[in-house]
Amino acid sequence: MIESFQNQEVKRVVKLRRARIRRKERLFVVEGCREIQVGLRSEISFQQAFFCRAFFANDSQEEALAEMRERKIPLIEVAEGPFEKISMRANPDGLLALAPTWETGIEDLSLGEHPLVLVVDGIEKPGNLGAVLRSAEAFGVDALLCVDPSLDLFNPNVIRASQGLLFRVPVAVCERDRAVSFLRSRHLRIFSTSAKVEQSYWKMDFTEPAAIVLGSEAWGLDSFWLEASDEQITIPMFGEADSLNLSVAVGCLLSEVKRQRQFEN
Amino acid sequence: MIESFQNQEVKRVVKLRRARIRRKERLFVVEGCREIQVGLRSEISFQQAFFCRAFFANDSQEEALAEMRERKIPLIEVAEGPFEKISMRANPDGLLALAPTWETGIEDLSLGEHPLVLVVDGIEKPGNLGAVLRSAEAFGVDALLCVDPSLDLFNPNVIRASQGLLFRVPVAVCERDRAVSFLRSRHLRIFSTSAKVEQSYWKMDFTEPAAIVLGSEAWGLDSFWLEASDEQITIPMFGEADSLNLSVAVGCLLSEVKRQRQFEN
Repeated sequence: MIESFQNQEVKRVVKLRRARIRRKERLFVVEGCREIQVGLRSEISFQQAFFCRAFFANDSQEEALAEMRERKIPLIEVAEGPFEKISMRANPDGLLALAPTWETGIEDLSLGEHPLVLVVDGIEKPGNLGAVLRSAEAFGVDALLCVDPSLDLFNPNVIRASQGLLFRVPVAVCERDRAVSFLRSRHLRIFSTSAKVEQSYWKMDFTEPAAIVLGSEAWGLDSFWLEASDEQITIPMFGEADSLNLSVAVGCLLSEVKRQRQFEN
Repeated sequence: MIESFQNQEVKRVVKLRRARIRRKERLFVVEGCREIQVGLRSEISFQQAFFCRAFFANDSQEEALAEMRERKIPLIEVAEGPFEKISMRANPDGLLALAPTWETGIEDLSLGEHPLVLVVDGIEKPGNLGAVLRSAEAFGVDALLCVDPSLDLFNPNVIRASQGLLFRVPVAVCERDRAVSFLRSRHLRIFSTSAKVEQSYWKMDFTEPAAIVLGSEAWGLDSFWLEASDEQITIPMFGEADSLNLSVAVGCLLSEVKRQRQFEN
């Protein structure tokens, strides 16, 4: 049991809060029982895990621990103080694991038979990316393309806001030209979204293979995407609000796609 | 110009962070240029406003200030240090105003010709309520009923997360029995939502006057609402996620209502 704040493993976990260290070590931190369970169901080979029973709130943590033991993932018990040090939560639940990062190149993406791809260009906050991942996963997108080469998918706030669902959504990070040529090569119809256009998304036909592109919360999409797309669409607003939260907009758009594919096919 | 951290006005604003003081003084704090501008457009009679030009980032702040001056709202200039003290933001934009609270009784609600009412029972976090308000305002609900007598609409995090749109959505706070009798008396069809039922919201007819009821993020709705409603509906999920963020769910549901009312009437 680790009892020292100066323990090398403790220091190692804390260092992984930095993107540079994550890239160098090819490891990232997955905190929380729910998040680790999504990883286990996704066959993630956790390198090791840390636990502190003092923080366990219900049976789920013991179950996750037993599952990791069965998979021969090295388990390290940590006392309360040092666990609080490695945790990034105000109320840790006593579980934290290290997972290997993976490649997020667009060349590795494979799409299903009738693809639905979500593209976000220039997303600003890791928490927003996590929320977008959660909405995208719920509506079963084939893939998320993040246009922003500086984006770090393995940021702790992405993992947390996605509730671990980053393990479930194929994500590629790439330049915008690369994204367009990928979408074209797969014969996807490209729908760019903007608060500045008139055409409602309710009038579109989303039953064919489609890609839906959203810009950053602050700036939306610029002319590059509006020109690269087949259709420019908007979500009608009925009040004073001039935009929706990004993950809400994703939910509205993807839910309409799924509705059409279920009922209008 | 207020330069002292000990100034009485500074202390007064800080005290308004407490719900008890807000109730006693019947005042709340509206921070930020965007939020104050929504209030001005909604004819809110701000009691006074505080400004600090050192934080002004663009012309919007000067415009809001001029508008408040024209409306004879007392304006108090504050030095950077004490402004940071009254501000609750990491990056204040130099504007903060005090607004009178209002009554949120259900008896004061009036609905339009073809009403759409949103009901949330037991929402947990002020930030979530703000996000729900933002989605609800964008889709033009007639009113939001919050079932939770302890809820404080004037919490700073509600105002912030709603981007000031709490000024635009009629909100009532009440007990659940009162909410049901209100909805019944207005002849609204009540749709309760649950992850545990089968019937997709895509199959529903929302063209008649309707109320949509959602529970807390953690627990959803209990049997009270499922029994009190005309229909129990769910948002189909296509992945591993077992729920959506509350404001995302609100967006999906309301956007389908508006779609139907626009195209299937």
